[in-house]
Amino acid sequence: MLPDHFTPVPLDKSYRLLNHGPTVIVSAQHAGERNAMSAAWACALDFAPPKISVVLDKATRTRALVEGSGLFAVQLPTVPQAALTVGIGTDSAVTEPHKLVKHGVQLFDAPGLAVPLVAGCAAWLVCKLIPEPHNQQSYDLFIAEVVAAWADERVFRNGHWEFGSAPAELRTLHYVAGGQFFAIGESVLVK
Amino acid sequence: MLPDHFTPVPLDKSYRLLNHGPTVIVSAQHAGERNAMSAAWACALDFAPPKISVVLDKATRTRALVEGSGLFAVQLPTVPQAALTVGIGTDSAVTEPHKLVKHGVQLFDAPGLAVPLVAGCAAWLVCKLIPEPHNQQSYDLFIAEVVAAWADERVFRNGHWEFGSAPAELRTLHYVAGGQFFAIGESVLVK
Repeated sequence: MLPDHFTPVPLDKSYRLLNHGPTVIVSAQHAGERNAMSAAWACALDFAPPKISVVLDKATRTRALVEGSGLFAVQLPTVPQAALTVGIGTDSAVTEPHKLVKHGVQLFDAPGLAVPLVAGCAAWLVCKLIPEPHNQQSYDLFIAEVVAAWADERVFRNGHWEFGSAPAELRTLHYVAGGQFFAIGESVLVK
Repeated sequence: MLPDHFTPVPLDKSYRLLNHGPTVIVSAQHAGERNAMSAAWACALDFAPPKISVVLDKATRTRALVEGSGLFAVQLPTVPQAALTVGIGTDSAVTEPHKLVKHGVQLFDAPGLAVPLVAGCAAWLVCKLIPEPHNQQSYDLFIAEVVAAWADERVFRNGHWEFGSAPAELRTLHYVAGGQFFAIGESVLVK
């Protein structure tokens, strides 16, 4: 079942979901296995078609699922999910097979796509891997095209983030180190 | 002359300067020419040695200087520099040769390195290009190693961002679109 307020974002506006530099959770499934991990190093790469880059360490189980299925989601955790985000970024399914349950991650299916999404996030992008073996091997760098996007319409609507009028708990997280994030802050508009 | 509060950041902590996803200004010089442009798509890529990725459009003059010299700086503009950041991200030196003067950009020399830095920023990273012609041509994606870093010690010291205790005008900017940024907000600590 889809979460409340889950609303499509047009692909030509999807770069705006990542443009302000949020920490993300990467999720994927392959051969009946699902997993999710946090990643601080995700970035928009192109407008049309929209592309992104994300760094996925070789030690992670999620990376193997991305390489297996060629499909993954990037989603933006919110302030109440800070502990969850640290938890699934620290624990690995390689040694903790039940890490998603342990950290309270609730998954739901992306509409029409074989990829799991994490409930409670502010926005979700489903991405199709563009295989670049040299980048993946040398830099752990994965490039993908965004093929679908959604947001919680309370905080992103009509192509704009509305952090000022949305509930404070929908602010995105921006990781530094050692369990410490900053929430996104106030709007600064240049006329 | 170096700005006040300009303090070295150890290379093993330099990824923390970009980890929270700030918009940056990229600066470079080559054959007597200097330029600077804004870039929303910069990202940490590795810890040790520290590496970053940044997207530089083929239409920009700064990209030509980066390709010519193999050296560039990535710096983090602050809230009072929002209009400057939009200005040098919109105007190109190709058609507006005096764009830096027009938008009030003051440059100073990086200590011991042939690269100009932008005054008034919160932090600065000097980066040495790792040539990857396929990425540069196909994706406008540049990979580089961080070889030196500094920060304004009022806002980043002992390896930590101190936005809460620093003057509010030292908060970093996080661009969305259409002249609209968010400043970085409040700390969220997971114990």
